[in-house]
Amino acid sequence: MRDAYHEELDSLTDKLVEMTRLVRSGISRATTALLDSDLQLAENVISRDEEVNTLFNEVETSILELMARQQPVAVDLRMIITALRMGTDLERMGDLAVHVAKVARLRHPDSAIPPELRSTIVEMGQIAESLVTKAGSCVATRDVDSALELKHDDDAMDRLHRKLFRSILAKDWQHGVEPAIDITLIGRYYERYADHAVRVAESVVYLVTGSRPS
Amino acid sequence: MRDAYHEELDSLTDKLVEMTRLVRSGISRATTALLDSDLQLAENVISRDEEVNTLFNEVETSILELMARQQPVAVDLRMIITALRMGTDLERMGDLAVHVAKVARLRHPDSAIPPELRSTIVEMGQIAESLVTKAGSCVATRDVDSALELKHDDDAMDRLHRKLFRSILAKDWQHGVEPAIDITLIGRYYERYADHAVRVAESVVYLVTGSRPS
Repeated sequence: MRDAYHEELDSLTDKLVEMTRLVRSGISRATTALLDSDLQLAENVISRDEEVNTLFNEVETSILELMARQQPVAVDLRMIITALRMGTDLERMGDLAVHVAKVARLRHPDSAIPPELRSTIVEMGQIAESLVTKAGSCVATRDVDSALELKHDDDAMDRLHRKLFRSILAKDWQHGVEPAIDITLIGRYYERYADHAVRVAESVVYLVTGSRPS
Repeated sequence: MRDAYHEELDSLTDKLVEMTRLVRSGISRATTALLDSDLQLAENVISRDEEVNTLFNEVETSILELMARQQPVAVDLRMIITALRMGTDLERMGDLAVHVAKVARLRHPDSAIPPELRSTIVEMGQIAESLVTKAGSCVATRDVDSALELKHDDDAMDRLHRKLFRSILAKDWQHGVEPAIDITLIGRYYERYADHAVRVAESVVYLVTGSRPS
């Protein structure tokens, strides 16, 4: 049987995995809100980010309690340090989903996404979801090999990000400056979201091996 | 006389204050590189960010050692938790200065900043420097009142950020899409830099009072 201390460490992991689920759902719904110009869904993403923040507060509180009552060593110590870092990354991913939803809300009932860029945004949303899902499963399983794969998936996001820029800067871009700004910011939000997912996976590598991937 | 343990905690504070100095210098030089289209200075900002990353690694190592060898309680425990958070914010501020420098490098020998926006960028650079300087002094002194003031200074940054957007979206914007994208990203970098400086100050409030400013 696990003792109370290890149960608390497990519960910390569970909370982080739950955070990955919430921010996956956030970016998924934000992408749909953006593509469908769905105001209600956008509002829903914005208001529900509070759940992510609440969970992060719980993670922080658990960490303080664990540290105050125990003297964690070795891998448990790294667990506490990395939990804080993973929580910070995941909380930020929730914010980035909110930023995407806010662009959808700002342009409603119009769409911020010109027809020819819809498929790129769909793909960026899918990669974001895939990255955070994999990150969540790495947190749960502590599987270093899977964690190291995320960097590779993130390259696909970077390629799509560059593709977005090429479209805005192409000679046949006909939508003017305002949609270009929206697309610039949206592209950046997805790219940052993916970066944070990679960082979560890198924290898993650090947790298990004691050193960060180069 | 301070014992070894408290000397280590002091040294942690010193390292964080040194990080604020480095990232202040980074954003200051990045702003100049941007305004003067100075390629060498831009390269200098980009290469010297390594110093910030090295210091952050030292902060993390100190924290792990402190936690492994001691059983910190109360305010010392919060110091360790907040040092990690402050270090993460400051490391990101270094990255954001690098992002600004990279735009300068990308557009060199041209300038990314149209003449009519130069004064706004000058101001954003000054506020960024002022915010991180104040944050650094809050970290050193643990002065809660000063820390709470940063939020107010950050409002000035948000106003300038909105002003940038208004300029790009104005009917008389004559520079086309590419400079609009540059300005959108640059504006976001300064705004994020300022947000992280505010977070550093908020961590000082948490360190001293045990609760975060609302």
